[in-house]
Amino acid sequence: MSLKHTILLLLAVFSLGAFAQKQPVEYVNPFIGTSNFGTTNPGPIAVRGMVSVSPFNVAGPKNLPLEKDSRWLSTPYVQENTFLTGFSHVNLSGVGCPELGVILAMPTTGDLEVEHFKYGTTYSNEVSKVGYYSNTLDNYNIKVEATATTRVGVSKYIFPKGDANILINLGLGLTNEQGASVRVVSPTEIEGVRSVGSFCYYKPEEAYPVYFVVQFSQPADEFGVWKKPTTYNGAEAQWMGYNGKTRIMPGYTKEVVGDSIGSYMRYKFREPTVVEMKVGVSYVSIDNARENLEKETSTHSFDQIWAETKENWNKYLSKIEVEGGEEEDKIKFYTALYHTLIHPSTLNDFNGDYPKMKTRETLKTKDTRYTVFSLWDTYRNLHQLMSLVYPRQQSDMVKSMLQIYDESGWLPKWELNATETTTMVGDPAGIVIADTYLKGIRDFDVEKAYSAMIKSADQIDGNPLRPGLKDYLEKGYLTTKTTNSGSVSTTQEYNISDYAIAQLAKALGKKEDFNRFSKRSVSYRNLFDKEFNLLRPKNDDGSWLTPYNPESGANFEKNLGFIEGNAWQYSFMVTHDTKGLIRLMGGTKAFASRLQDVFDKGQYDMANEPDIAYPYLFNYVKGEEKRTQKMVSNLLNKYYKNAPAGLPGNDDTGTMSAWAVFSMMGIYPISPANPLYTITTPKFNKITIHLDTDYYQQEKLIISSNITKENQFIENISIQGKPHKGYFITHEELVNCKFLEFKLNN
Amino acid sequence: MSLKHTILLLLAVFSLGAFAQKQPVEYVNPFIGTSNFGTTNPGPIAVRGMVSVSPFNVAGPKNLPLEKDSRWLSTPYVQENTFLTGFSHVNLSGVGCPELGVILAMPTTGDLEVEHFKYGTTYSNEVSKVGYYSNTLDNYNIKVEATATTRVGVSKYIFPKGDANILINLGLGLTNEQGASVRVVSPTEIEGVRSVGSFCYYKPEEAYPVYFVVQFSQPADEFGVWKKPTTYNGAEAQWMGYNGKTRIMPGYTKEVVGDSIGSYMRYKFREPTVVEMKVGVSYVSIDNARENLEKETSTHSFDQIWAETKENWNKYLSKIEVEGGEEEDKIKFYTALYHTLIHPSTLNDFNGDYPKMKTRETLKTKDTRYTVFSLWDTYRNLHQLMSLVYPRQQSDMVKSMLQIYDESGWLPKWELNATETTTMVGDPAGIVIADTYLKGIRDFDVEKAYSAMIKSADQIDGNPLRPGLKDYLEKGYLTTKTTNSGSVSTTQEYNISDYAIAQLAKALGKKEDFNRFSKRSVSYRNLFDKEFNLLRPKNDDGSWLTPYNPESGANFEKNLGFIEGNAWQYSFMVTHDTKGLIRLMGGTKAFASRLQDVFDKGQYDMANEPDIAYPYLFNYVKGEEKRTQKMVSNLLNKYYKNAPAGLPGNDDTGTMSAWAVFSMMGIYPISPANPLYTITTPKFNKITIHLDTDYYQQEKLIISSNITKENQFIENISIQGKPHKGYFITHEELVNCKFLEFKLNN
Repeated sequence: MSLKHTILLLLAVFSLGAFAQKQPVEYVNPFIGTSNFGTTNPGPIAVRGMVSVSPFNVAGPKNLPLEKDSRWLSTPYVQENTFLTGFSHVNLSGVGCPELGVILAMPTTGDLEVEHFKYGTTYSNEVSKVGYYSNTLDNYNIKVEATATTRVGVSKYIFPKGDANILINLGLGLTNEQGASVRVVSPTEIEGVRSVGSFCYYKPEEAYPVYFVVQFSQPADEFGVWKKPTTYNGAEAQWMGYNGKTRIMPGYTKEVVGDSIGSYMRYKFREPTVVEMKVGVSYVSIDNARENLEKETSTHSFDQIWAETKENWNKYLSKIEVEGGEEEDKIKFYTALYHTLIHPSTLNDFNGDYPKMKTRETLKTKDTRYTVFSLWDTYRNLHQLMSLVYPRQQSDMVKSMLQIYDESGWLPKWELNATETTTMVGDPAGIVIADTYLKGIRDFDVEKAYSAMIKSADQIDGNPLRPGLKDYLEKGYLTTKTTNSGSVSTTQEYNISDYAIAQLAKALGKKEDFNRFSKRSVSYRNLFDKEFNLLRPKNDDGSWLTPYNPESGANFEKNLGFIEGNAWQYSFMVTHDTKGLIRLMGGTKAFASRLQDVFDKGQYDMANEPDIAYPYLFNYVKGEEKRTQKMVSNLLNKYYKNAPAGLPGNDDTGTMSAWAVFSMMGIYPISPANPLYTITTPKFNKITIHLDTDYYQQEKLIISSNITKENQFIENISIQGKPHKGYFITHEELVNCKFLEFKLNN
Repeated sequence: MSLKHTILLLLAVFSLGAFAQKQPVEYVNPFIGTSNFGTTNPGPIAVRGMVSVSPFNVAGPKNLPLEKDSRWLSTPYVQENTFLTGFSHVNLSGVGCPELGVILAMPTTGDLEVEHFKYGTTYSNEVSKVGYYSNTLDNYNIKVEATATTRVGVSKYIFPKGDANILINLGLGLTNEQGASVRVVSPTEIEGVRSVGSFCYYKPEEAYPVYFVVQFSQPADEFGVWKKPTTYNGAEAQWMGYNGKTRIMPGYTKEVVGDSIGSYMRYKFREPTVVEMKVGVSYVSIDNARENLEKETSTHSFDQIWAETKENWNKYLSKIEVEGGEEEDKIKFYTALYHTLIHPSTLNDFNGDYPKMKTRETLKTKDTRYTVFSLWDTYRNLHQLMSLVYPRQQSDMVKSMLQIYDESGWLPKWELNATETTTMVGDPAGIVIADTYLKGIRDFDVEKAYSAMIKSADQIDGNPLRPGLKDYLEKGYLTTKTTNSGSVSTTQEYNISDYAIAQLAKALGKKEDFNRFSKRSVSYRNLFDKEFNLLRPKNDDGSWLTPYNPESGANFEKNLGFIEGNAWQYSFMVTHDTKGLIRLMGGTKAFASRLQDVFDKGQYDMANEPDIAYPYLFNYVKGEEKRTQKMVSNLLNKYYKNAPAGLPGNDDTGTMSAWAVFSMMGIYPISPANPLYTITTPKFNKITIHLDTDYYQQEKLIISSNITKENQFIENISIQGKPHKGYFITHEELVNCKFLEFKLNN
């Protein structure tokens, strides 16, 4: 060993030592996912926070081609953009449709300018950590820092000497909804309402208000409101010299309402001055927004608030401790875990108030009422991760789904802030409920849940969750006549939901239902076409859709058989019946070969959910398990990076991240509603999951391995020293085993 | 006498007897002024009410050419229009700019339809009385009745059996402002805010909110909100199938904000059903709107409310009792008096709250805070009428002006709902104040008032009331360089204001000011051109504007010398110095001849204020007084009718009507700020003015005459039997004389 090598080794050891003391929060890099359409943002947020403070750099022609209105851009922040027009206070993370991104605050200096394309600026010195974001606004030399509690965004603006402005822009937003009301309460407070809604351009009639109160640490020297009115084109326009022009209303203290309005605070600083700004939010009322602000931030300083938020994050992230392995993997792992703890997020106010589904009457909840249920995504792995590591949260999520059922008559599909957006397909809530129950998390009204599941499974008329149910029940599948997109894939989704009902029926002793729904759950088999050895749409008369190209549907191309995918990306999405599929395909060998084809033909789409479990399916073919281990490892390396483009695509409210978290722990919940994990190579030497003893008997589960760069393949697996057969482990085995040990080789 | 004649005589006597028992309210025809741009409306209103319930028939292409957006239409209702789209709850009466006309309620039947051009309908059976309006909506067979308290509009909808709707449309309005917020509180209540402002297309930055609460006697079977969003034109429009389309949001109970929104209540009636609706209004807050509603209407029924409002009107109208004369004249008289009791109207809430000028912070008042001060109009006669008959109201109006001064630093010019619209020219508030004080109404802070008057008279910089003051002080007049319109007429207005200051200074013992302002008050003389024997604009260098056509400016044509008029219509508008003008013109004969020219050349404009006193100016020429008597009588006959077109033009918040009231009583306040009346033929045999003994020594003033169709000219005038010399009488003489008796002949 040369001296050079010795120094490098010493540096490595030193670094390792230094890293070993790092807390989980310190591994999180919130910039991951802020490019490549990951649609996460680097703004500070509390664990499952209602509020985040995201830098907003997607407006204005200077941000083309990633300008929000120039395409279906669904994030307030894109890493490659450079023109910042504020900080938005309610934001979605990892979704595929533009929504929220409103209550935009912007500090500026000099004269008052309220047009965002004029006051926008480039920025420097960008820093993002858990619960913290900072940058410097180039045009103004203002340093911005931001943090957040659950329902309050807190910012610190460090102004230079001279004239300064803080703008609250209620016209601009990521959402395509308009409408706001604002009132300056005093030189230190502004309150208002902003309309949002029409998620994914659906249900504009269910647009809804978000309420806010803004408080400033320094009273403004001047304040006011602005309004940009509609431009008139009729005869009256000739008399309106001000037609369409923005108006400034200085000193105004009454409500101003309209589609494009805002409020400002102006200061004249004799020396560089810090202003702290708190933005309390509520979906119920302005009073509640104010109460949220006061209860959560009280008189605490920015630094105290940040410290508390960070500490709480660390508590959650530390439920899984990882040791050994690559530093980069720890960053990827904890950032992924962080992303799974953003949505579902908190809907209720500090006092328990929350809006009823659709009509938005005020209701009260004891437990947290969660929102942002992107269930077509999250039923596959995110809720399984919650059940394992955060069962209290998972229980509250199930209870939230039952509240939604109580309020609206139906379980959620894609619920967002007490509106059912009915985005995507299938009937996924019951899958999550069954999965949760079968994992022993049972502190909810399971009979009610079961009734809700049966309702959407059996009610043909007026069923918002299962369109095409009549065909499905009569023929076993949806046809090219039933729907103009996704007849096969929707059949598969219904099969999985029916499987979930069957499993829950079994657990509840409902034998008849078990039989009925078990039978229904494999009706996809009618759509298996031996000619292609893949699924294929059928017409209303039972004939195959002809001509047929199983590749049509890739890259989200709209097609008759599959939603957001093609036959390759969907045919194996029957993990509740993989053995049945193997038989249909002609045995394990043919199955493994067809599965390999998906990858070899470039049909595998890591960026979307239908084929998300595919890499694990080789575990169903004895002797082919290394393919899973290799494939998962390759995908983790290829698509997950410590970089803005470090997610495969939309994070899908944490689903992509949950895939990484499980995959890096060496276990994956292969079949939703089946309390079973399949196994791959873990990425760390020691993974300690601190189990919640309210739900589990053991305090810890330790997954250990001799992972190195060379040792990537599983030689054997043992539980507390006893050999474990095969590449599957039940939930019960896992949470009770204490030690799951991997012996790896190369 | 033939039998025929006898019967006719008997009928006449019978009729007279029947009419004699009629109360003053019964003579009011609120349709007068609803055509010929009178811009009054037939909707019920309380004395000086904040709220009225006006049928709204100026929207929709079916109302062309009198559709509100097709021209500068300033009224919610035009008699010749036929297409009704609702009932607006805040309205201006007799103004010349479109404003208010919002909070539109509309009952319909059948399916819910929220586009006004679709749900609008013709109507029949129109009835309007004091405090009451009714019609039947043809398309729906709904009978509508409406009444009002000071701050609450009350409607009664008599629905046929079947589906029924009540729409509260917050998008539609006469105003060109937009922006509203609405919330369904319960199946019997809706609350919200509507933005209004930009009166006369001025000061859009001072647009302001009007708050309302609507309560229904019947809980709705269904309710909801609608919103018509902005139409997008960008790339995002392609994904928005609903782009620009109106949305219905059933059952929604949270705020909806936006530029074009509304709320509805739906009913399913098994039998014909009456729904009573109350709309409480406030310019301060929703809570105050609700309190206004509850305090003013309590549990009272529609009929009780109407009876109370009518009784209160009768009390006010009965302050002047007229006997004898033509029935038509009584209708004209009491309707005119009614129109003078609408504006200035009440701004403060039941609890005394009202919004501060401009910034709209909440202030409290003991007395009524009046608003709608169209002072360029009303300084000429309306306030003089109030001082004589309703001195308590006049005192509160002066106090309101002083509140405006306290709040904004300046007296009002054209104040509207706590905004200074700065419409029109001149500095008229001080004229009203001086006139009031000199008539013995002195329960206000006259020193403050005087300071306020001096401020606008002397402060050159930043003076919103007297632009061009520098030239005025240095040269004695504004020049064609000072202003691009009205250099002469504005000089005249400032002269009158300065005359008022001089008169008040004299009364207050401020001799130096009296001299200074007396001198200033006749500076118009510099603009008298012997060549034309009329006033003429001067250029900055003191030369006459050349070439010069004194007729330019008629019909509101914009011109350098005169606002809304020409040299003919303005040259005599120096009634504080008529004797001076007579000298300038070369004596009484030349004066009378030139005055007669105005009429003979068709230059007299009865529809606007500058020449409103002209018919009375013949009284300044001894022996020519009959011309006044004849002229006034002719004008009353020609322009004032018991018909929708029965006003000369815009009522100008009662100024045109006040002219008729005075003229029909035989007295006219010829020179504002001079407590003097000039005299003409009264139209009734007996006119009893019940004086307010808080302000006047006598309880009554009786004006009697032997008026008949034949006897139209004054032979002599006596006071308590003693001959009265000349055709002028001071205020003091008048209010103390008890009996003013006219002997008329033909």
